[in-house]
Amino acid sequence: MTNIVTIDGKASTRTTTPHRVVVVGAGFGGLETVYRLTGADVSITIVDRRNHHLFQPLLYQVATASLATSEIAWPIRYLLRGRKDVTTLLGTVTGVDAAARRVLLDDGQTLPYDTLVLATGAGHAYFGHDEWEPFAPGLKTLEDATTIRRRILTAFERAERESDPVKRAALLTFVIIGAGPTGVELAGTIAELARVTLPEDFRNIDTRETRVVLIEAGSRVLAGFPEELSAYAQRSLEKLGVEVALGHAVSDCNIDGVVYGDKALGARTIIWAAGVRASPAAEWLNVAADRAGRLQVNPDLTVPGHPEIFAVGDTVTIAAPDGKPVPGIAPAAKQEGRYVASAIKQRLRGQTPAPFRYSHDGSLAQIGKKLAVIDFGRIRLRGALAWWIWGIAHIYFLIGLRNRLAVAINWLWIHTLDQRGARLITQGRAVVDSQSVPSHSGEEKRVSSAR
Amino acid sequence: MTNIVTIDGKASTRTTTPHRVVVVGAGFGGLETVYRLTGADVSITIVDRRNHHLFQPLLYQVATASLATSEIAWPIRYLLRGRKDVTTLLGTVTGVDAAARRVLLDDGQTLPYDTLVLATGAGHAYFGHDEWEPFAPGLKTLEDATTIRRRILTAFERAERESDPVKRAALLTFVIIGAGPTGVELAGTIAELARVTLPEDFRNIDTRETRVVLIEAGSRVLAGFPEELSAYAQRSLEKLGVEVALGHAVSDCNIDGVVYGDKALGARTIIWAAGVRASPAAEWLNVAADRAGRLQVNPDLTVPGHPEIFAVGDTVTIAAPDGKPVPGIAPAAKQEGRYVASAIKQRLRGQTPAPFRYSHDGSLAQIGKKLAVIDFGRIRLRGALAWWIWGIAHIYFLIGLRNRLAVAINWLWIHTLDQRGARLITQGRAVVDSQSVPSHSGEEKRVSSAR
Repeated sequence: MTNIVTIDGKASTRTTTPHRVVVVGAGFGGLETVYRLTGADVSITIVDRRNHHLFQPLLYQVATASLATSEIAWPIRYLLRGRKDVTTLLGTVTGVDAAARRVLLDDGQTLPYDTLVLATGAGHAYFGHDEWEPFAPGLKTLEDATTIRRRILTAFERAERESDPVKRAALLTFVIIGAGPTGVELAGTIAELARVTLPEDFRNIDTRETRVVLIEAGSRVLAGFPEELSAYAQRSLEKLGVEVALGHAVSDCNIDGVVYGDKALGARTIIWAAGVRASPAAEWLNVAADRAGRLQVNPDLTVPGHPEIFAVGDTVTIAAPDGKPVPGIAPAAKQEGRYVASAIKQRLRGQTPAPFRYSHDGSLAQIGKKLAVIDFGRIRLRGALAWWIWGIAHIYFLIGLRNRLAVAINWLWIHTLDQRGARLITQGRAVVDSQSVPSHSGEEKRVSSAR
Repeated sequence: MTNIVTIDGKASTRTTTPHRVVVVGAGFGGLETVYRLTGADVSITIVDRRNHHLFQPLLYQVATASLATSEIAWPIRYLLRGRKDVTTLLGTVTGVDAAARRVLLDDGQTLPYDTLVLATGAGHAYFGHDEWEPFAPGLKTLEDATTIRRRILTAFERAERESDPVKRAALLTFVIIGAGPTGVELAGTIAELARVTLPEDFRNIDTRETRVVLIEAGSRVLAGFPEELSAYAQRSLEKLGVEVALGHAVSDCNIDGVVYGDKALGARTIIWAAGVRASPAAEWLNVAADRAGRLQVNPDLTVPGHPEIFAVGDTVTIAAPDGKPVPGIAPAAKQEGRYVASAIKQRLRGQTPAPFRYSHDGSLAQIGKKLAVIDFGRIRLRGALAWWIWGIAHIYFLIGLRNRLAVAINWLWIHTLDQRGARLITQGRAVVDSQSVPSHSGEEKRVSSAR
């Protein structure tokens, strides 16, 4: 046993055990940290409560029946199978004992670390109205996506059997709350599903009469994009048949629908794309966070008071060189992960890393078929060319040839044959919920098979 | 209004409304009936409690992480979108009012019919031990398949974190009860998963030490095949590392494992592939059924006493020309569906259909990579050639080019790169269940990240 000095300057008695790095979360930030630590003299443990890494930018396509779950998700331990320096654990972190330098798991096990990287992401935030969640689910996980898919497809199935015109209209009304990229992409895709994919399949309803309403409290859609692209996106959505309601905060979500401004809108399917809340990492460490729960980190992405703890991705808030906050997008999390890996390596060599500097490559959002907007700073694109770049970029960023092939084949089918391959109602109640399609007491209702 | 004579000879007052056919169930038998009724002067309603038709012969590949759910399932109304004479309904049938000729749905609606086709399939049977079901799920639906996949993959994840060797052994023991085609296919695929796909991915366990135990009460595996192919299948399974236990009925399934013969085997994952029970169609009609609940039908597949009600597929029992029962396989259900469609058409023309005559084309079962058995009657094949024929036949019988491409790509990946694309733990609890991985009271357990 020899006294050696750890990276934060404290003395510690260790033998030749390599420096222990624990990474919590296998999203874009956590995984990139592990990838970029290749070759460093460290032993790494990555822990996640799910067994898969998820390509979140295409999650809305699973929710709208365009892609299968397995096409945008990979088992974490499969991605890291070649890395003998990495142990992958499926487990739920419940806290961090920063004094003892241990991560606490829900089964009582602990993971000791020399350096900790928190990449724990974010969930939905209902602005103090958590009671809305059952009526307006958000979209963060594969289960969220299959839940939303089930609700969307089941609404059409129920409408096909509903004879009351008011109830049928509520079943055929889809409300998306929040007009950021996810909200815009969901609204455009649901409109296309109703107007292009489904009309031939139903006999009693005309799915082209479906209402898709996109509600946004701010003054424009895609607020993170330049105004001209926001205006283009709104026009494109309206051409697809989406009703865009700007400047209205939602004041209630319930079983009947939503209330916004002075309007009550009957709707049986509501999707929440409005707010996020960071994971409880700030609570684990009892350090300062912003209103959305995001850790306020030092310029080197360490947590104030904890030079041995880094935090990356949606769980942190940090300013970009232009003074605006670094956006909560995959490329930003990957840049932070890359920086942290490099910072750990530099510190192990006794160097002090320069501050993290975010470089914004661009913003992309798909609105519909051959409709997308791209903001590369000086270059702004919209329409078909933007859509092709969007599609090629997303296939490029998927992991592995098999999934790239699978997604490309699916998109080919969707856009040439107007068909979607993942229109399956699974998980939960797959049958018509009789509670929600009230039978008419005593009255016998005939579902006509002859039109 | 004119008096017209319906197909069973009873007078009825109808206008020019076409003859109403209601088909309950959109499996192989029900769907084939609808397909073959093309061009008949009938109006058809097909009702199913799920929104999708399922290619059950490959369901075990979803359960073993080889295929995605959307690759073997299709929305029923999509398959029938071009048929303006067909209405597709998502709904649960609760009974049949044969006197009033109406199908009863769970929301109180009814579907009147002139001819009814029951194609309601079968579920699992636990031989009077329904309490075993939570410990030994069966494989009939997409949800069953994702449940079994979650259990299999989670068992490896828990084993990776388990330090108690007895508990770890139980986590790495997989028991399949019943050695028919499904049991054999599951056992062989799980063995390959453990021995070929997973070893590189884990650090604390050697997945090649996994035990796969196939328990069968009868005297050989694949009892429906000739003895020489049964013997070959057993040898092949044993080469893959499967332990085959013949002549043993299971006497208990519980949280710790299974009891069979005088052995108690610790196992955390048990899959039921032993018995089926027909849907309650016989109860709906209050007619005779065999021990497994299957309707005993007339030679023209009508239900005794109900010439206007046909029944096909796994819900009926009928003898083949060789005196043996028609097997519960997809081609048999399709032949019956084809016969019923033709019988309905003949009756509408005033003809009496000849009795149904089953023709057995062959039996196929996959055991593992380049291992399969085929019984074409005179021609019996085994090994690599049989495996290629098995694979090509299954891709041929899938519906649509997109799914054929997707399955072919997946199989290419599995068999050239030894990887499986659908290794996702979703639905239900995706995290490690702390109840089942007991923490060691007070004792601190370190999960080593350095090997």
